[in-house]
Amino acid sequence: MQQYFVAGQAQDVVIITDKDTIKHMFNVMRLTENDEVVLVFDDHVKRLAKVIDSAEHRFEIIEELDSNVELPIEVTIAAGFPKGDKLEFLAQKGTELGMAKLWAFPADWSVVKWDGKKLAKKADKLAKITLGAAKQSKRNVIPEVTLFEKKAAFLEELEQFDRIFIAYEESGKEGETAILARELSQMKAGEKILFIFGPEGGISPEEIETFESKGGLKIGLGPRIMRAETAPLYALASISYALELMK
Amino acid sequence: MQQYFVAGQAQDVVIITDKDTIKHMFNVMRLTENDEVVLVFDDHVKRLAKVIDSAEHRFEIIEELDSNVELPIEVTIAAGFPKGDKLEFLAQKGTELGMAKLWAFPADWSVVKWDGKKLAKKADKLAKITLGAAKQSKRNVIPEVTLFEKKAAFLEELEQFDRIFIAYEESGKEGETAILARELSQMKAGEKILFIFGPEGGISPEEIETFESKGGLKIGLGPRIMRAETAPLYALASISYALELMK
Repeated sequence: MQQYFVAGQAQDVVIITDKDTIKHMFNVMRLTENDEVVLVFDDHVKRLAKVIDSAEHRFEIIEELDSNVELPIEVTIAAGFPKGDKLEFLAQKGTELGMAKLWAFPADWSVVKWDGKKLAKKADKLAKITLGAAKQSKRNVIPEVTLFEKKAAFLEELEQFDRIFIAYEESGKEGETAILARELSQMKAGEKILFIFGPEGGISPEEIETFESKGGLKIGLGPRIMRAETAPLYALASISYALELMK
Repeated sequence: MQQYFVAGQAQDVVIITDKDTIKHMFNVMRLTENDEVVLVFDDHVKRLAKVIDSAEHRFEIIEELDSNVELPIEVTIAAGFPKGDKLEFLAQKGTELGMAKLWAFPADWSVVKWDGKKLAKKADKLAKITLGAAKQSKRNVIPEVTLFEKKAAFLEELEQFDRIFIAYEESGKEGETAILARELSQMKAGEKILFIFGPEGGISPEEIETFESKGGLKIGLGPRIMRAETAPLYALASISYALELMK
């Protein structure tokens, strides 16, 4: 069944006001009286709803659904600005894999230089992608996207996390395999974790030092070299496997 | 250090004859006498080699390297023909994530219809992608690509596997989470496993029955709906996590 995210709190009767949502519901999907959809409001609960007036875009809530597909921990993926459309790729695939937030920052070895204007445009585009992917993968939450113009602003946010992992290629090459598995086995539901990934060139030694000084742990993600946009998918799938499939 | 795959067996002195390899070595990378590279022959062992004659493309093997980045089990990914360039995507990302072989077959619900000519062309393209990705991710093995024109030919190959998993969306929705973790915990090094994924529309009930009759187990890959091309990456990352990071 089609799922839509609706800003605001759930009420017994809801009028949809967002233009894109209305367009998709009534022009693309051609919803008509008594058709049912799933609506997700700001409380992240899925609710079955039925059209009671298609001209006025009015729905009646039928019931709450017992469907929560969110990871038991809140995972933020932070990537050093990568080239091209790799963030777009990450926005889509990361949403399918359960990411809570997508952050990106200008890393020392980022090749691209994005100014405020470019970042605002890119953030808009990424938000559209996470919204679309969240609908399609039936998420309860739309991953928030934040692009930091300055690395300092990103660093200030690190203290809010329970654990910080630094995906470090050299750790993988050196055969470091144990830390992520150990940490995931100790994770408690609701914890907030941050995974930091470098751009194509990797994370600079100074950045490693900074992240470590803020509590970051260097981890390996297996022995194979992965591209910048592939490693976050590995991390998210591992978290799901450890906390959802092995539970 | 740059890595190249070379057909044949290793000898003390090797002359490179493959045109693409020569071009990359001597035109792109501009190798010259005493420059070192890693060569991987048919035995999948990495060897350090040094240029002794750049005009004749002649190398001397210096030593075997103790670097094996292959998964401890041999994982074949089989996908129902998906739309567009999703197989190309899978060829690249699957290689980074340790896949041993990439297979694809015409599934009941495949939208695309590819004839023998198209398949041969596509297989060529995919082989180039797996080769490139295998070099970049420093694999010991280039994943083989096989595109089956008839489903019957694919089905005949199923008996060679120790375990067959059917990635079944409905299993995930119903909350099936235990089987893959249980099976991976029992896996022995060297086993051959097959993961079957449907095209965008999924696997038909008749196909499920056929795969089950050949020993396939339906598994869930977590509660979120993933696109056809994302689910195989989840599976490969989970296998790496279970068998390489948790070992």
